[in-house]
Amino acid sequence: MTTYDLTTLGEAQIRLTVPRGDRLATCRELRLTPAGSEANVAGLLAQLDRRTAFASVIPHGDLAQRFIDEYRAVGVDLSYCVRCEGRMALYFMEPGDPPLPAKVVYDRLYTRFREIRPETFDWDGLLDTRVLFVTGITAALTDNTGDTVAWAVREAARRGVKVALDVNYRSLLWTADKARSVLEPLLEHVAILFCSRPDGIKVFGLEGDGPAVNAALRGRYGLDHVVSTDAIHGCYYCGIEGERVYGIEPVRVTDRPGAGDALVGGALHGYLNGNVMEGVNYGLRTSKLALTHYGDLTHLTPSELEIPTTADILR
Amino acid sequence: MTTYDLTTLGEAQIRLTVPRGDRLATCRELRLTPAGSEANVAGLLAQLDRRTAFASVIPHGDLAQRFIDEYRAVGVDLSYCVRCEGRMALYFMEPGDPPLPAKVVYDRLYTRFREIRPETFDWDGLLDTRVLFVTGITAALTDNTGDTVAWAVREAARRGVKVALDVNYRSLLWTADKARSVLEPLLEHVAILFCSRPDGIKVFGLEGDGPAVNAALRGRYGLDHVVSTDAIHGCYYCGIEGERVYGIEPVRVTDRPGAGDALVGGALHGYLNGNVMEGVNYGLRTSKLALTHYGDLTHLTPSELEIPTTADILR
Amino acid sequence: MTTYDLTTLGEAQIRLTVPRGDRLATCRELRLTPAGSEANVAGLLAQLDRRTAFASVIPHGDLAQRFIDEYRAVGVDLSYCVRCEGRMALYFMEPGDPPLPAKVVYDRLYTRFREIRPETFDWDGLLDTRVLFVTGITAALTDNTGDTVAWAVREAARRGVKVALDVNYRSLLWTADKARSVLEPLLEHVAILFCSRPDGIKVFGLEGDGPAVNAALRGRYGLDHVVSTDAIHGCYYCGIEGERVYGIEPVRVTDRPGAGDALVGGALHGYLNGNVMEGVNYGLRTSKLALTHYGDLTHLTPSELEIPTTADILR
Amino acid sequence: MTTYDLTTLGEAQIRLTVPRGDRLATCRELRLTPAGSEANVAGLLAQLDRRTAFASVIPHGDLAQRFIDEYRAVGVDLSYCVRCEGRMALYFMEPGDPPLPAKVVYDRLYTRFREIRPETFDWDGLLDTRVLFVTGITAALTDNTGDTVAWAVREAARRGVKVALDVNYRSLLWTADKARSVLEPLLEHVAILFCSRPDGIKVFGLEGDGPAVNAALRGRYGLDHVVSTDAIHGCYYCGIEGERVYGIEPVRVTDRPGAGDALVGGALHGYLNGNVMEGVNYGLRTSKLALTHYGDLTHLTPSELEIPTTADILR
Amino acid sequence: MTTYDLTTLGEAQIRLTVPRGDRLATCRELRLTPAGSEANVAGLLAQLDRRTAFASVIPHGDLAQRFIDEYRAVGVDLSYCVRCEGRMALYFMEPGDPPLPAKVVYDRLYTRFREIRPETFDWDGLLDTRVLFVTGITAALTDNTGDTVAWAVREAARRGVKVALDVNYRSLLWTADKARSVLEPLLEHVAILFCSRPDGIKVFGLEGDGPAVNAALRGRYGLDHVVSTDAIHGCYYCGIEGERVYGIEPVRVTDRPGAGDALVGGALHGYLNGNVMEGVNYGLRTSKLALTHYGDLTHLTPSELEIPTTADILR
Amino acid sequence: MTTYDLTTLGEAQIRLTVPRGDRLATCRELRLTPAGSEANVAGLLAQLDRRTAFASVIPHGDLAQRFIDEYRAVGVDLSYCVRCEGRMALYFMEPGDPPLPAKVVYDRLYTRFREIRPETFDWDGLLDTRVLFVTGITAALTDNTGDTVAWAVREAARRGVKVALDVNYRSLLWTADKARSVLEPLLEHVAILFCSRPDGIKVFGLEGDGPAVNAALRGRYGLDHVVSTDAIHGCYYCGIEGERVYGIEPVRVTDRPGAGDALVGGALHGYLNGNVMEGVNYGLRTSKLALTHYGDLTHLTPSELEIPTTADILR
Repeated sequence: MTTYDLTTLGEAQIRLTVPRGDRLATCRELRLTPAGSEANVAGLLAQLDRRTAFASVIPHGDLAQRFIDEYRAVGVDLSYCVRCEGRMALYFMEPGDPPLPAKVVYDRLYTRFREIRPETFDWDGLLDTRVLFVTGITAALTDNTGDTVAWAVREAARRGVKVALDVNYRSLLWTADKARSVLEPLLEHVAILFCSRPDGIKVFGLEGDGPAVNAALRGRYGLDHVVSTDAIHGCYYCGIEGERVYGIEPVRVTDRPGAGDALVGGALHGYLNGNVMEGVNYGLRTSKLALTHYGDLTHLTPSELEIPTTADILR
Repeated sequence: MTTYDLTTLGEAQIRLTVPRGDRLATCRELRLTPAGSEANVAGLLAQLDRRTAFASVIPHGDLAQRFIDEYRAVGVDLSYCVRCEGRMALYFMEPGDPPLPAKVVYDRLYTRFREIRPETFDWDGLLDTRVLFVTGITAALTDNTGDTVAWAVREAARRGVKVALDVNYRSLLWTADKARSVLEPLLEHVAILFCSRPDGIKVFGLEGDGPAVNAALRGRYGLDHVVSTDAIHGCYYCGIEGERVYGIEPVRVTDRPGAGDALVGGALHGYLNGNVMEGVNYGLRTSKLALTHYGDLTHLTPSELEIPTTADILR
Repeated sequence: MTTYDLTTLGEAQIRLTVPRGDRLATCRELRLTPAGSEANVAGLLAQLDRRTAFASVIPHGDLAQRFIDEYRAVGVDLSYCVRCEGRMALYFMEPGDPPLPAKVVYDRLYTRFREIRPETFDWDGLLDTRVLFVTGITAALTDNTGDTVAWAVREAARRGVKVALDVNYRSLLWTADKARSVLEPLLEHVAILFCSRPDGIKVFGLEGDGPAVNAALRGRYGLDHVVSTDAIHGCYYCGIEGERVYGIEPVRVTDRPGAGDALVGGALHGYLNGNVMEGVNYGLRTSKLALTHYGDLTHLTPSELEIPTTADILR
Repeated sequence: MTTYDLTTLGEAQIRLTVPRGDRLATCRELRLTPAGSEANVAGLLAQLDRRTAFASVIPHGDLAQRFIDEYRAVGVDLSYCVRCEGRMALYFMEPGDPPLPAKVVYDRLYTRFREIRPETFDWDGLLDTRVLFVTGITAALTDNTGDTVAWAVREAARRGVKVALDVNYRSLLWTADKARSVLEPLLEHVAILFCSRPDGIKVFGLEGDGPAVNAALRGRYGLDHVVSTDAIHGCYYCGIEGERVYGIEPVRVTDRPGAGDALVGGALHGYLNGNVMEGVNYGLRTSKLALTHYGDLTHLTPSELEIPTTADILR
Repeated sequence: MTTYDLTTLGEAQIRLTVPRGDRLATCRELRLTPAGSEANVAGLLAQLDRRTAFASVIPHGDLAQRFIDEYRAVGVDLSYCVRCEGRMALYFMEPGDPPLPAKVVYDRLYTRFREIRPETFDWDGLLDTRVLFVTGITAALTDNTGDTVAWAVREAARRGVKVALDVNYRSLLWTADKARSVLEPLLEHVAILFCSRPDGIKVFGLEGDGPAVNAALRGRYGLDHVVSTDAIHGCYYCGIEGERVYGIEPVRVTDRPGAGDALVGGALHGYLNGNVMEGVNYGLRTSKLALTHYGDLTHLTPSELEIPTTADILR
Repeated sequence: MTTYDLTTLGEAQIRLTVPRGDRLATCRELRLTPAGSEANVAGLLAQLDRRTAFASVIPHGDLAQRFIDEYRAVGVDLSYCVRCEGRMALYFMEPGDPPLPAKVVYDRLYTRFREIRPETFDWDGLLDTRVLFVTGITAALTDNTGDTVAWAVREAARRGVKVALDVNYRSLLWTADKARSVLEPLLEHVAILFCSRPDGIKVFGLEGDGPAVNAALRGRYGLDHVVSTDAIHGCYYCGIEGERVYGIEPVRVTDRPGAGDALVGGALHGYLNGNVMEGVNYGLRTSKLALTHYGDLTHLTPSELEIPTTADILR
């Protein structure tokens, strides 16, 4: 048996969020929450009793400690993180109220994570896992991070570790062309791909509605499992388990960041169970939970994966 | 003239609520509010200038004082409460955002209220009233509380005091069968019954839509007034004033607990005026107010019973 | 070139707002925000790089300083304000959750602003402007304020300064008849009129739907530009640029006061650009922003006037 | 037996306090607490199981309700309060950190309480009491309030009710000469006088240290009991029980207003027990409690009058 | 090498603290923090890079999860905790401002931890450690917990594991006589004893000042190391390293609970280094840090053990 | 007459402060306040009705807007600020409770301000002033900022503008040797020097107590005015007005940053009045005010410069 169910690597960030109803230009308090797509996925799975590890290069100091404690609290193994000098990646966010969009200001340049290389990490430990999870965000940061992600994917494949990739395209970080040139070569090693319909169109030049893009991704790259979402219309699966369209039930959004990672985490929980289709159901539930609570990391108990039946209405 | 318009008895509780957007497993602050269905009804009516009293067995100490001050502030007579040693009943709540349900953790075992007996209270004082109000919640706690409620209902009837009963079935406290066996014998003494459609189905084995269950309750038990609700579809009255269906206007829910009690309180205000049908209108208004404000006790002024006309829109 | 793009006069107020979910009769904290319709319009335009000034009579002391600093922070020239002894105008507000209306308690009597006269202010300075902006709120307070507004409008017209009038009828301050008798004589001097459909009906005795009232105002008074709104149905323009109906996209309301002023401010930004029709688009955007943020003054950057394209969805 | 142990009359106020560390000119939130010297004394005694009543003229509306509920919660009878139209007395406060003084802005003009006359209140009810408590603050507001206090003192004396007077001189409200001319004639009817050393010097022209002024007050006016304080040096009693000097133990001040009233309330608790000397000990304890908690009304339990022995030190 | 540096067992609690300046009888919010003397010691040492484990019997549910995550976040191994049904131990606290004492209300009865027996835990795992740490608090709860602590101490000694005991006498939990009868037989197995001067007097019948009691404990029971404190006068060591008196520098107390545990943790860090005398210095530093921060668990970094030199004074 | 009384240049920063009682490694909220020594001095003087301007290079965006609005609100002219791309200088702070020191984490690298050159600013505007104020902090950042400060000082002297220099040595930014090599050549142009005793010792190699270092600075460099402080012992003046030692009255510290700037600002207010000795009194008062309020910028009114007489003690 492998030591881990899932391992991953990415940048550790701190998010500083303006309280709802205020603006960055006027606010006097910011909500501080650790952030990081890959860590969120590892953290969600750890709460579902999966053995997970997260690797990064993290500066010394209290802000970084805040990040480490957040994910260690829920059971993620952070012992592969390399400590360094330097600054912590930050981002500022005004949450926005629909139809007004959120407003994000990145302050994540000049970090040491941007200089990682394959030899930065202990791969014998990290690849003693069933699944390696990587994202396009980390691939996008610098050539160094892109190379390291690519190296890790190929090395995982070489060792028989399944690879999960979340495209997660961010136009602030790289161009669609660059994203395609980096990510497309990795797809042959990927067992389960997460790619939204907009990303499928922008990055991979696909066309059509949600199910069409979802199916085209699988068709073109010969993937075992593809999970796509369309944010508000639906979520789509096609793969060796068949095809399925999932409805999305709207919720009042308290805090959006982390919701996509919660969807990925739920789906990967299903994947680790051998049932991605059911996993997407988990993911839709956890992402709903994510939207209604603060913080990137979604806190939950295994029992909350089940569909709730409305309990006694309180009076 | 009687000393009171309405008296009631029940358990005094403290609710500890997680701030919206946080979870019990992560939160650092809890909102503390006194709670108790029967006290809420007495407190609402007191603000409408009704003379009300609430009886209970309440431990010494500051948490209990918090409860007492809350209801005394709005004019409820709490002088019938018996003080004792022991612990205060608590419950923890995560509010939830629809469609996610609220999550409630009771911590109300081991209290002295569970050991009440008829002789615990001064009935000459408490039954010097126009109406005695009791609920299925108190009947459900223990055999002692059930016996005491039953004794009080029969004694009230013997003295010519009108009895109001709110079924308020809670599956966490007793089974539907047990509820029926305790409550059904009381119905012959009840002047006005509050029973939701789901409770009518579960506890009394009725069938049909809201109006059907509402009418069936009246038909089977020969009650003067029955008020039912269906939470989101509507509210129903049938009784000696006729039959009526009331629409329910949705509101953004800030805090749900106490909304049902506010409905009951409004309807009983009408009942004390000799007009339950109008009272249900009051109740729909007060329960709407309840949903949009924190706390179990709904704070209002008599003038707020009137239907508001949209005032000058502020700019 | 004139020194100012827009100048205005009005009363300086402090709003004390109950936190959502609480009531004035129970709350322990009030949110303190400066307020004043005319100042809000000047403040919005200042952030859009317009040169604006606001005149008032303001008492000495820290509450007044709070007001001054709020608007000076965004660049409004408050040097025309006259300082005096006396009290600051206050108002208390419970925000309310739809369908429950907001509840407002004015405590704005006994202020020195109510005694202003034309000679109170330095008109040579204030009318060295492209536009003078006045509102029915200030005209409504006392005979003195009404006379001063009327004098200013006529003097502005005499000097060739364009006049913008926002009717902003408040039934708590004066009757519709009184409002008509004061405001109607000013219309011949007005270049751009803001008058909602309800105000058009109540104050000017018009009839019909939004576009009809909008057009009737222009027709009857021969105005260059009329902008009307119907709160939830739409916004309407007719004037020398043509006619147009604008849809209104609903938003979750965090704080209503100031939203109407933001609409006026946006439209006047367009007017100053020579394009009111485009200005109404700005105004709809800024009033949407206003509704989702606390405070009467809407904080924004010029770039936020542009229609947002949904950026990278954060995860 | 009389219905009440102590009755009193005074103005109902709302205090709006700047959070510590902020200034009125910059703050965004104010702490709202009901206030009123006489109500504080009645409220403290009610918590010590004394039967007390407070009379005032109080406007309709939610701010006033906040005041009423605050004191009714702890058991004060407010049924003698007369409701009226008009505004609520307010005051704004920056707490200050020693050695910086607190900064207070009164906004208490234009209230109906300033127009009270003896016939405003039900004296048969209010003087069915062992003690009538009045203060120089109420005597100072207007000629009307001064006349009413004087009338009440004489009428109490006529009926054999003991009178307690707290001089509580406020230079913002009246001159020392005026205070003396109003209060001195009342002293012949006073059983127990509270007058600080500074007030004794300023108002009554006395000289000397704390014990000297304390004794001089008794000597000159032939009073049964005189309690004086010197804020930081000590507290002094002389009267028919003898003479005593009490030390004052410094505490970290969280909120000053109400501390003096707590001292008076404690001393009057002793007076009602027939032991003022012990009462001053109670008062020193309750005023210490008052200084460390927010709000004018000091919340306590009877057991907290006892001198605490340091309990198990928590770890 | 052993797996752990230190293991321990105790009850998991949740503390609910009234905000400073408020009272339990009036407050609307409580600060929620996990608590537990033994867990605090393990948590402090984990942050100093010691390998520690904490064992308990902890109910299912979110409150318990809050506890687990708190200590797992800093690196304590909680895998020896046994999960059960039932309620979580709570305590309510008003912090108090000196000279007013803190006020504590325990609500920790009826928990399953009170029924632990030696066979509840995996001792092969727990005693694979250099030090076993136990406290008089856990020994005090019930006969079961007392027996289990005694069994563990003897078993540790049998296996050559060093035992650290913190007497931590609580008069609310047991009598001094009972404490002595339970704890005294354990002392022959104890390597390092923590016992304050007051506890030495009350529990063990010793006499004298701090150093005298400290030395007498060592003398009578033949202990290697004894650390005593006198809260405000000083801290004392005697043992095989010699004798020493440490001064205590006063700090403004923000939150007292956990400060004693921080002292113990620091001293044990020294003990594990082979230098208890230096460890007491660490402990005085960490307990000072503990007093100035909220929560029972003291958060710190290894570098903060060093004596700070006043850095650049900020302006 | 010059346009300004005082102009200055420096970096615009945002301070993110941990709430007292929490730690950066655990906190969930940070207090956001604009910061900048030179801006603080300009802001203080603006509130005392001095005409001041502050120049900097400030990035676009909302964080920068927060800074601009803060100082513009109190009347500082920020029109000389040059806007650029790039990041905003940040620093994180744990306030610390004495005797524990504050803990500061700078995140101010990589800003464009570090690249300023003399030609960056409009000196014709900035030097149309009575006083130019510069600090060692800005001189310390980079060679560019050091050169620009030096250029500005010489140019000011050339134009007959008085120069005020605050040494404000920060060991985190440069060595004492480097500081001396940069600052010493400027002293011949300086009219009023601010240099603490520790800075005098570290940077300029002086010896002795406060008055001695103060006098030695004057003696060695032939300065008109030297103001020194010793943080807790006293403040010292020597110069053409004579010599004076000022006592420092301790206050409870709420927020330390900005207190030194408030001292400088007060002294410069006196200097502009032609009376530095009186100005130091102002400064001691304003710095005391600064210590008890949040934020770097000290908010005050001119009347608060007067020594307060303890007003009516509130009860």
